[in-house]
Amino acid sequence: MIDLVVVGSIALDSVKTPFGEVKEILGGAATYSSVAASIFCSPGLVGVVGKDFPKKHIEFLNKRKIATDGLSVADGKTFRWSGYYEFDMNQAHTTNTELNVFSSFSPKIPKNYLESKYLFLANIDPLLQIEVMSQLKNAKLVALDTMNFWIETKKQELLDIISKVNLLLINDAEARELMNTPNLVQAARTLLKKGPSAVIIKKGEHGALLFTDSMCFCAPGYPLEEVKDPTGAGDSFAGGLMGYLAGTDDTTVENIKKAVIYGSAIASFNAEDFSLNKLKKITKEDADKRYKEFEKLVEF
Amino acid sequence: MIDLVVVGSIALDSVKTPFGEVKEILGGAATYSSVAASIFCSPGLVGVVGKDFPKKHIEFLNKRKIATDGLSVADGKTFRWSGYYEFDMNQAHTTNTELNVFSSFSPKIPKNYLESKYLFLANIDPLLQIEVMSQLKNAKLVALDTMNFWIETKKQELLDIISKVNLLLINDAEARELMNTPNLVQAARTLLKKGPSAVIIKKGEHGALLFTDSMCFCAPGYPLEEVKDPTGAGDSFAGGLMGYLAGTDDTTVENIKKAVIYGSAIASFNAEDFSLNKLKKITKEDADKRYKEFEKLVEF
Repeated sequence: MIDLVVVGSIALDSVKTPFGEVKEILGGAATYSSVAASIFCSPGLVGVVGKDFPKKHIEFLNKRKIATDGLSVADGKTFRWSGYYEFDMNQAHTTNTELNVFSSFSPKIPKNYLESKYLFLANIDPLLQIEVMSQLKNAKLVALDTMNFWIETKKQELLDIISKVNLLLINDAEARELMNTPNLVQAARTLLKKGPSAVIIKKGEHGALLFTDSMCFCAPGYPLEEVKDPTGAGDSFAGGLMGYLAGTDDTTVENIKKAVIYGSAIASFNAEDFSLNKLKKITKEDADKRYKEFEKLVEF
Repeated sequence: MIDLVVVGSIALDSVKTPFGEVKEILGGAATYSSVAASIFCSPGLVGVVGKDFPKKHIEFLNKRKIATDGLSVADGKTFRWSGYYEFDMNQAHTTNTELNVFSSFSPKIPKNYLESKYLFLANIDPLLQIEVMSQLKNAKLVALDTMNFWIETKKQELLDIISKVNLLLINDAEARELMNTPNLVQAARTLLKKGPSAVIIKKGEHGALLFTDSMCFCAPGYPLEEVKDPTGAGDSFAGGLMGYLAGTDDTTVENIKKAVIYGSAIASFNAEDFSLNKLKKITKEDADKRYKEFEKLVEF
């Protein structure tokens, strides 16, 4: 039984930070999200890899109880991303992107995913996001993430899918760019008018803001003294959040707030090591413990 | 009876933002701080103005029960600052600074201030901050603010006064610059080792972080939909915070957390209009009301 369908990129990443360097390690938005979600529920992954994709990665996902029936293996090479972070780790610098098999990705939802009530559309072409959403008719909560590339190249299509989803995840710079305002509150309020019942603005180390028509919730960033590799922070935030919602099957605003904190907790673990090295060791108990630390962080 | 001594600049500001323009209006760090503090306690101001300083401003300060015995009127012109904010209001751009009488400012603490238990050293030359501190021997809590100019020109003197104060207020960019690390947690931990028992990192719209040896507290930024003029936000934050501490005469960590929230509340009011236009209408009841909104903002 699949609780949450996750659609997006699966990649082999090469990353350099001031604290080390890794080559061709497991990455991609859908990978980070589904591994994060698997702490709380049973996700099903939808994505594409090439014939060169190491089998051990699929075995790892299955060991995490992530269904890979929706993972197609296409002729060609797996999507690759290379990037680096300088001293200020808030900004990723891309050195190379090879779309490879991802360039002709046409997501198909396997039969055993169709009853899933939760759907996370990680950052891919908004036209594909619309296509996936139309296949998953039983979803009661659909969340969407995106990136500046789609705001700049497919803004209308992006606004179209935004009008259809329940929950929009977007980072602060993207929210400002998409709504053409420097004010995040204004950006969130305008985005809410476009359709979603909740908008979450991700602010990296500064935490996240959750907006609905009637409230605003501020989640702090976890004060990490050591950030080794921020790659996948936004994706593991989204995966933790959606995994918690799907695992509890509760879409009340009160529960979405809790999910934002769980997402923040998972994202903070993720940054503590390269790739999924830390995330793969994290249990629900670890997440609960950090959740309690978040309670302390804002207590006054 | 003076609860809190505030030492710093008193200025005539000319400010332009996308929402309007004002010329030669009341400004300066000590002005914003003492007006903010006067919501909670009886501050005494220490500063210098020129003979051109409009009497109405002194009358206004006195009407707010701010003592001006420490305000000297020197031969010459009052300190003037001109600046503007672009579409993104997070960054002030200075067009002109005329130090005028402020360039030879030598703060003298009047007798009736000497029993004050709280001292706020707003952003001035660290050598003057040391001089003031040595005059106020009864202070049980001394807080200090600074700016990048002193980090770049008088770093050693700044570190010297930092080692003597109880509470350091510094913004995020300055903390990174002073401690030469992009990581705010590391910056705060290193600053704590230099002497202060508490370090508060101001992050503008992202709120503030309070660090002591044993804890970290994250205060959210108030989600303002309309920011008219951010000038004085940091100073009114500091003034609200110190005013609350002095008014309650309680320096426990629990009370400092509350003070951070009151400071954030006052800073958010301040940004809603130019100069002190909004702040001068704010009562303790308004502050209490916004404090309760902050409780809601972080509740999960």
